[in-house]
Amino acid sequence: MFQANELNPTARFLMGPGPSEVHPRVLKAMATPLVGHLDPQFIEIMNGVKTMLRQLFRTENELTFAVSGTGSAGMETCFVNLLEPGDEALICVNGVFGNRMCDNAARCGAKMTRVDAPWGQPIDPVMVKQALKTCKPKVVAIVHAETSTGVRQPLEELGEAVRGAGALFLVDTVTSLGGVDVRMDDWGIDAIYSGTQKCLSAPPGLAPVSFSPRAVEVMDKRTTKVQSWYLDLSLLRTYWGGAKRVYHHTAPVSMAYALYEALRLILEEGLEARFERHERNHALLRDGLEELGFEFVVAPEYRLPMLNAVRIPKGLDDAAVRARLLDEYNIEIGGGLGDFAGRVWRIGLMGCSCTVNHVHILLAALRQIMGR
Amino acid sequence: MFQANELNPTARFLMGPGPSEVHPRVLKAMATPLVGHLDPQFIEIMNGVKTMLRQLFRTENELTFAVSGTGSAGMETCFVNLLEPGDEALICVNGVFGNRMCDNAARCGAKMTRVDAPWGQPIDPVMVKQALKTCKPKVVAIVHAETSTGVRQPLEELGEAVRGAGALFLVDTVTSLGGVDVRMDDWGIDAIYSGTQKCLSAPPGLAPVSFSPRAVEVMDKRTTKVQSWYLDLSLLRTYWGGAKRVYHHTAPVSMAYALYEALRLILEEGLEARFERHERNHALLRDGLEELGFEFVVAPEYRLPMLNAVRIPKGLDDAAVRARLLDEYNIEIGGGLGDFAGRVWRIGLMGCSCTVNHVHILLAALRQIMGR
Repeated sequence: MFQANELNPTARFLMGPGPSEVHPRVLKAMATPLVGHLDPQFIEIMNGVKTMLRQLFRTENELTFAVSGTGSAGMETCFVNLLEPGDEALICVNGVFGNRMCDNAARCGAKMTRVDAPWGQPIDPVMVKQALKTCKPKVVAIVHAETSTGVRQPLEELGEAVRGAGALFLVDTVTSLGGVDVRMDDWGIDAIYSGTQKCLSAPPGLAPVSFSPRAVEVMDKRTTKVQSWYLDLSLLRTYWGGAKRVYHHTAPVSMAYALYEALRLILEEGLEARFERHERNHALLRDGLEELGFEFVVAPEYRLPMLNAVRIPKGLDDAAVRARLLDEYNIEIGGGLGDFAGRVWRIGLMGCSCTVNHVHILLAALRQIMGR
Repeated sequence: MFQANELNPTARFLMGPGPSEVHPRVLKAMATPLVGHLDPQFIEIMNGVKTMLRQLFRTENELTFAVSGTGSAGMETCFVNLLEPGDEALICVNGVFGNRMCDNAARCGAKMTRVDAPWGQPIDPVMVKQALKTCKPKVVAIVHAETSTGVRQPLEELGEAVRGAGALFLVDTVTSLGGVDVRMDDWGIDAIYSGTQKCLSAPPGLAPVSFSPRAVEVMDKRTTKVQSWYLDLSLLRTYWGGAKRVYHHTAPVSMAYALYEALRLILEEGLEARFERHERNHALLRDGLEELGFEFVVAPEYRLPMLNAVRIPKGLDDAAVRARLLDEYNIEIGGGLGDFAGRVWRIGLMGCSCTVNHVHILLAALRQIMGR
């Protein structure tokens, strides 16, 4: 019979595109003995998660909770609930996650219009407005923080245009939430999703989501069943809310503990202070990387502080250097995806992995490897 | 700003239909600092999970892993990957989870034939064989351990009939795996799913699954895309297996740690010893409950040891007694679902919650409450 080794992973500095490091208080929360998922004490924890997520998303939306899957399940929850076969969707694509949105919409049987921008650049709002003149989408979808390229997408102007066209505005905030400001209500966002393993610094496994009353109204008027039972919001709503909780699935109790504690830590630090910390450490990293000859993929005004995409200088071997960082220094950084594979690194400064010391150890290790 | 209370849940004895209690070694595993989900050390852990799950399912199937969602996501994974619109499915229904299978199959656009049995009784193999004469299903689905009723479904005879009819045999083992024997290969099962929070005694959040080469062949011949991106096995296969792992989603790292440690504990105890422990404590509970005037819903030969469904004796108030058990004794037991609500209790003896002491404290508490 197979004898599995003791679980004994090496302690790592997690500076890739996620998961980020997790605060000891969150690890301790994960080790808390479980209560049942219908226990009144667990319902209090669910309520706390909902209230704290509303503060993070800056929304009043009643329908705000965490889907029992990773950020990708959050994406799918939005698409399968908002779209019915034959509906139109306008999707903005400037990286891997915009492409994934298209794949999701197609699997819902939606007709699609794409607005593309080159990888590393934001979507031009003018092109979206132009497209809205030639199609009549039910949903307009865009990525706030494109994890594959490091682009931060301005959203203020877009929300108005999308609502003006009578469409629902769907936004991916997997990498941005908890690291830069996300203002769901102010920006006119109708559906939003995120993940726990980026700037929230909880382990991967839950997907915070929120839906505006307009989005709920559209869902209530569906004529077909949602194609996913697991992600059907008409069922999940009675499990996560309402006077009497109705059994749907069994919520991941320990993951909810972790998210609860991670959200408490975020609110204790304060959102403004947290965003400022991300900007500050990003600036420190940027200066150090530029000194070493790295160039950023994204123009300064559209750079994400928590996801630094840089071109690998000539003479540095992508795989070899990342392997040395991991093996000799216990530092994980991310390689490039798609067209960027082998040419770009993605260096994360997310949540608990966003400290001055993280920046220092990475820069020092790179200097040593590069002989500088 | 909202100030959430400290996370401080009461220690409970979890004797409901799941989650069950979790071993301290598994809690400790959950508190282990994270490595990245593409870290070679995490891939070793994924490989360990796959190997140990094969031993638990008693299968040689290459495609054996854990879906990043709860048992219900495991169910949906099986249905959306095996069925295409217009396919036929034969579904056996004798409780809540058989009904849920029908809901899943309908959302896949499948044509459905049902074989029903009254709640509390197993499905009669003769009726399935009869039905197979009048329809030509691609998939025949059945629940091994019906968590809503406590029925243990004999499967040996059925597998042969299903394969004889050229169909794939799909089985729900959410509540049975790790508590009674599950012999995937011997019983001719082609697709199987389970959950972590029952007899595996890990927290809820992952769904072990396995697929036979026959099932994989059928999936490879699909002419339509799987309707779920998140659960699409053609994508998940390259993430969980193959020479080079291809990024799909971010696996719940801490949950994988927990499942890894829970599986190690199970194999250290030994499957036969573990099944015997479940039978032994079930017998002790049964004798005690019958002495107190409880009657089992299910006939002795079809009873599940880990899920004891008993009729609530006249004069005992369902909600009031369960509330007293929880508040005064910190013991959670389960109420009835659907037709059984208010009339039946479901008492779990699963994994770490299946000890002689658990049986003793529950019986003693009931005696006190009933004045016996």
